[in-house]
Amino acid sequence: MTQRSFDAIDPNLDLQLERTVDVPPQLVWRAWTEPALIKQWFTPAPWTTVDCELDLRPGGLFRTVMRSPEGQDHENVGCFLDIVENSRLVWTDMLGAGYRPRGGGLNEQTNCGFFTAFILLEPAGKGTRYVARVLHGTEADRKRHEDMGFHDGWGAALDQLVAMAKKM
Amino acid sequence: MTQRSFDAIDPNLDLQLERTVDVPPQLVWRAWTEPALIKQWFTPAPWTTVDCELDLRPGGLFRTVMRSPEGQDHENVGCFLDIVENSRLVWTDMLGAGYRPRGGGLNEQTNCGFFTAFILLEPAGKGTRYVARVLHGTEADRKRHEDMGFHDGWGAALDQLVAMAKKM
Repeated sequence: MTQRSFDAIDPNLDLQLERTVDVPPQLVWRAWTEPALIKQWFTPAPWTTVDCELDLRPGGLFRTVMRSPEGQDHENVGCFLDIVENSRLVWTDMLGAGYRPRGGGLNEQTNCGFFTAFILLEPAGKGTRYVARVLHGTEADRKRHEDMGFHDGWGAALDQLVAMAKKM
Repeated sequence: MTQRSFDAIDPNLDLQLERTVDVPPQLVWRAWTEPALIKQWFTPAPWTTVDCELDLRPGGLFRTVMRSPEGQDHENVGCFLDIVENSRLVWTDMLGAGYRPRGGGLNEQTNCGFFTAFILLEPAGKGTRYVARVLHGTEADRKRHEDMGFHDGWGAALDQLVAMAKKM
């Protein structure tokens, strides 16, 4: 997948946030891969991330729990697919730990996840060219994710990541 | 995942075919990873495998087309997750090429795949300890796959693989 990482996206199926930030890839990587750091920036305020568990290897679990301002918890479970330190982090919510499918496919009643996310980092001067790319299986899923506030949400979280990283 | 490869399965969610066959892991591996060979054994007769395409790397496409005795074609698309030559081949039909989700999860109308398969090989004398393990997300999916004839089907295909490998 290496060569394709920064390829053009499919605008019908993909969502992408691309920005150059003035913290180096090493700090962005740590922010994305250390649970204690993830809890500090991952969820746009006033939501919070109250739990995070990750097993940083292909097939490993990536789990976060987000808490709404009203105190309601939302668990997100995914599985890491590809990990290149300081450069590329890929996971999907279609699978859980050990690559096990989440929910059912034959059983149409069950929600089985809907995206694969790529965090792609490249050095840019003293900062980082940051790409968050999210692949979907259908145009309806892409649109739904967009309507859920993908750009504002992932952008606000990145602002929080950068603010945190500048204090590290 | 290495240490877990031969772990106990979850009988509620998993299906497994385990057998010792008298062809070496190297030939079983070739049978599973060369399209020209896959076409010769992959589908229990009188079904045939009329097309096979594979990109043998994590994130790579695994596509087969099976033809029924009545001439109807059925395409299967998956994505490789983990590849260790002569030892372990892992793929899922929840994802397609480049880890893209297949079908939709938010869109409940769409079938999004339902399994992750592990082919695990270990030398056993001059032969191979062969484990085909299939993970599902729900008990209903496991049961449905079992009722579709998992054990007979994967067993008959393995017989064909061994018969072919003995002539190689």
